[in-house]
Order: sequence, then structure tokens, then C-alpha cells
Amino acid sequence: MHISDLSESEIVARIQSRLQPPPDWLLVGIGDDAAVVAPARGRLEVLTVDALVEGIHFDRAVMPPDAIGHRALAVNLSDLAAMGATPRLALLSLGLPAGLSCGEFDAIVGGLAALAARHRTHVVGGNLTRSPGPLLIDVTVTGTVKHRRVLTRAGARPGDEVYVTGTLGAAGAGLGMLRETATAHQPASPACVQRFCYPEPRVRVGELLGRNQAATACMDLSDGLADGVHQIARASGVGIEIDADALPIESAARTWHAAAGRDPVVASVTAGDDYELVFTCRPKGRGRLRAARLREGPTLTRIGVCTPGPGVVLRRKAADGSRAEPMPPGYSHFLVTN
Amino acid sequence: MHISDLSESEIVARIQSRLQPPPDWLLVGIGDDAAVVAPARGRLEVLTVDALVEGIHFDRAVMPPDAIGHRALAVNLSDLAAMGATPRLALLSLGLPAGLSCGEFDAIVGGLAALAARHRTHVVGGNLTRSPGPLLIDVTVTGTVKHRRVLTRAGARPGDEVYVTGTLGAAGAGLGMLRETATAHQPASPACVQRFCYPEPRVRVGELLGRNQAATACMDLSDGLADGVHQIARASGVGIEIDADALPIESAARTWHAAAGRDPVVASVTAGDDYELVFTCRPKGRGRLRAARLREGPTLTRIGVCTPGPGVVLRRKAADGSRAEPMPPGYSHFLVTN
Repeated sequence: MHISDLSESEIVARIQSRLQPPPDWLLVGIGDDAAVVAPARGRLEVLTVDALVEGIHFDRAVMPPDAIGHRALAVNLSDLAAMGATPRLALLSLGLPAGLSCGEFDAIVGGLAALAARHRTHVVGGNLTRSPGPLLIDVTVTGTVKHRRVLTRAGARPGDEVYVTGTLGAAGAGLGMLRETATAHQPASPACVQRFCYPEPRVRVGELLGRNQAATACMDLSDGLADGVHQIARASGVGIEIDADALPIESAARTWHAAAGRDPVVASVTAGDDYELVFTCRPKGRGRLRAARLREGPTLTRIGVCTPGPGVVLRRKAADGSRAEPMPPGYSHFLVTN
Repeated sequence: MHISDLSESEIVARIQSRLQPPPDWLLVGIGDDAAVVAPARGRLEVLTVDALVEGIHFDRAVMPPDAIGHRALAVNLSDLAAMGATPRLALLSLGLPAGLSCGEFDAIVGGLAALAARHRTHVVGGNLTRSPGPLLIDVTVTGTVKHRRVLTRAGARPGDEVYVTGTLGAAGAGLGMLRETATAHQPASPACVQRFCYPEPRVRVGELLGRNQAATACMDLSDGLADGVHQIARASGVGIEIDADALPIESAARTWHAAAGRDPVVASVTAGDDYELVFTCRPKGRGRLRAARLREGPTLTRIGVCTPGPGVVLRRKAADGSRAEPMPPGYSHFLVTN
């Protein structure tokens, strides 16, 4: 059975059956013209929206349907994490092609609902429409943060140290491997594919960095580390020097790129989809950072330093010591070459 | 020049140049990972999202680009109006096909920005992506409303009178005329086409109905009057009897439907896209209603009454007095016949 054989209210009921019970701050939920919520006392509101479009961001032939739902929410939660915000609610706008099966639809919604439950993010409403072709998933998420605990891209100063969470390059390599899998039996690294399909938004780290006032600037790596450091440098008015040897590049990604004759460092810093956080800290703020690090899962790696600038450089070992090369531009998911 | 020849930051700058200056409650706007806003004191928050998908909701060949932008925001403002809420901010998620010209893009954004300015709705952020085919516009809007001033669909009681704003059927007929215009020089009624292209969300009426506590239930007519009264009846647990002769059907729509051999009443109540409000009032609440009416533009017409139910009926004049027929189901924009 196809999802388009159902009425709108049947589809809504299918979604609702996969959601957690409504929280007490939700006064009017799914089923009216709009959702009504009581605001969170004494906190600012943080809002973001991201779209996943079939054929641009994912391919239904190779990506498990629950991963599509997971990613659609994860990319938004990652944006909240980068601001130091705690997720609260989501609105779900779906454009459904005629050939989508009910099983596939349920798995997409299930993947999103499972991640939402883990991050206490309630789906309060949305929109359903047909699509003339691609599957469309547009998710709006709001969260809350205390005054003076907001992390922006603009607070880094010369001398601040640059850190990144987790490892780099796994998701980008995973996407490449997923595309190769059409011709191979087994991807080069199931772990990299997993990281592409099910990115783990660093919500808890972002909250702690904001709460401790440990970070001076922060953003997420949706478009890769190179893009991230360029953006922080521009917004903060500083230069940044990254130590290539300090980068926590995922070892399977490093091997895979090297086997294909690519420079693993350049390939990993220009790949998107990592959804790690890059942030800057005052050198004397290391105690605060340690507090955030101790209580939380992913590793935090120091990868560079902010300079009076301008310019973002990548410093590499060389025969005669080291040399600095310009940081390549970030991954651009928008530009069309034609 | 095509919009896809520009970088993401150039496109964002193009959008920003068309927006009003940022309000003081916007603490972090376009350009960071997410927007940060100060909440409106002592008010609830109302949230809604709606998508316009090319080929489903509009046809770029016949609809002016500024009308596409206008409609994309208007349908959301109409949802807020139905809740009695005052609009505050919007997030704009765009999926852009390769062939979209910069002029067309600017006009779409201009149409949206002009309506946003009129309703003091600030665009605080959004998302840009390529689309593999259709132009995609997904708008999220939030507004605010005071406690106990929220209008839902669920408060109607037997004996309440049913009202509608403005006129019915104009937009639906306008859409039909627009499709015919490909073969005719001039649409049958430019006024109907105008109503389809540039729906006027009844924001002020909704605010006044909520503020006066004049209405017991309310919704907007995105899917037509028949759908609206069915939904209120279901949510409130009442029946509704509508007087066909009282319906304020747009005269040009009536003429156009009759000329094509259609029943103008059935055609007008089942057509979507009117974006008027249907609402219910206690009979002794007429004073409050008059207060809302006096200060505002569109006519308010009494069209029926709530009954102990169940059932939604359309009462028509007949040779022997009158007869009640079942209200047809509403316009369904979702169901796919295949």
C-alpha cells in the first residue's frame, strides 16, 4: 500500500502513533490550524529550519528510510547544539511522492521520532502535501537557552584555542562508500556509513559549553571543518591557524581516501555532514572546558589557535620544519555547476 | 542570470536586502547556525508551517512570481489568524531549481517581504538548497496570543451562530480561470484571479475575535467552507446547519460556475484557497462581534447555526419551503487518485 492511498487524517494518525505523549507546555497540538505552546520561563528562544530533498541530500535507493528521518531532525538539533540551546519542539513538513510505501513512510517517521524522544523534542505540528517527484522533508526546530549563554560564531579573539568534538571525515567518506556500495558487496567501513546515515548531534556538549561559558564561539560542521573555521574567522574578525597533524581524522576515512590517491587531510576537512562542533576557548578557560569534557561522551581535541589574522591557514609538517598553506574553502552543497 | 549561479551567501544577501530592519527582540538573526529571539512577555506562542510545491500548489507558467511569495506567507498568516494570534516571525526554507532566474527569485522574495512588512512579521532565518525539479517554498511562522484568548476549533456549542468573513468561492474560481487563460485572452474575472494569487489573511479579524472573546470556535478556509464546518463540528462535537441562501458567494464566481453548468453553491463551498475565517458565536455575543466588525474591513456574514447534531447540513430553498442536504466533503488537496 502506498502512503498516497491514505487520507491526510489517516497519515497524521500514523505519525501521532509514533510520538511521545504531549508535554504539559503544549496547549494545542496536532489537528488545529496551528500549535499553541507556553513559553519556557526566563529563557531565550532559538529557531532553525533545514530541508532534506531527495536527489540532493539523500538517495532512497541506498539510504535506509529510518536514517532519512533521523538525519532530517539531527541536522536541526546540531544547529541548536551549536548555539548552546536545549531542544524543545519540532514542526514537520512533508512532501510525499506517489510511490512511497506505507512501510517506508513509517520507518522515516520512526527514525525521526526515536531521535526526538532521545532529545525530548516534541513534534507539535506540521504540514502534509503531495510532491510531484522528490520526497521532501522540512523540519523546523526550536529550543531554549539562558540569556548570556548563547554561543555564536562571533566571539573568538586572537589567542583563543580551537577545538573540535569527535572525529572528522567519517560521514563524508561514508557517503562516498555508500555510493560505491552499488558496485561492491560491502562498504569499505560500515562505521563511516553509519556516521553518514545516523549523525549524532552534539546537543549535550553544546549545552555544557554554553552553560559553563567555556566557549567564545561555536558552530556545527554541517559543511565541514574548513567551512567552519572560515565562518568563525569571518564572523569574529580573527585569523585561524589549524595544525593538520592534530586533526582527529577518522582512521577508516584516512585509509579510504589514501587508497584512492586523495590527500586525507584535505578530503576530510572539505567533506560535509560531520555534524561535530568546532569552537574556540580562552586559554585560561581550560578548567571550564575540562568540566564540560568530563561529563560528556565525544572527545574534544585542540586543533589550532586564533591569530590576529587575517587568513585561515593549515599548518603541516615539512622536511624543514613546517609550512602553512591556505585552508581550502568549505564544502558547498548549494552551488550548481552548469 | 540564474539564481543557481550565485553562492549561498550572495543569495542570502539578496533576500536580506528586501527585508525590514531587524526588530529589537531579534538577538541573533540570519547568518548564524540558528536565530535567537527574546520571547514576548506574558503571551503564548503559536507555530505553524506550510509548504508550496511547484506543480502541486502553483504553476510558474501562469502565476506571477510575487504572488508565489505572497501566497507562501499568506497561508501561514491565515493559520495564525484562525488562532487569534498576532504574527511575529518567519523562517523561510527554499528549494531552488536550476532554471530559476534572478529576476523571478527577487520577485518571489519581494512578494513575501511586502506581505511580511504589512503584518510586522520578520524573517529571522531559513534554509537554502537546490531542488532537482520543482520550486519549493516552506514557510514557518510563529505568533503570539494571550492566555485564554486562543481560538480553537473545539469550542462551539449547540445554538451558537456560524459566521464567515468576506466572500466565498472567488479564489477557487480564480484558479479555474487562470488555467483557462492559457486558451483565452482575458480571465472571466480578474478580481477572482487576484483573490487566488494574493489572498488576504484575516489577521486583524482573528486578533479582534480572540481579544473580545467574541468567537467560541474558529478556523481558516484553506480547504473551503465545507471542510471548515465539518472540522468545527467534529472538533466541537456539534452539528451545523448552513443556510445556502445566506452564503456570501462572490458574484463573478457564481456567474462563472453557472455558465459551466455547475451548481455555484456546491462549487464554491468545496473550493479551497479562500483563506477567509469561519467562526461560531454565542447568540448573546453579538455585541462583542459588532465591536470586532466595526473596526475591521471584511464583511462578517451569519450563515448558519450549531445544532445538537450530529451532522452538517446545507439547507436550501425548495418549492415546498426548504430541504436539508448533507454538506459535501471539503476540498482535499492531499489525496492522490491512482
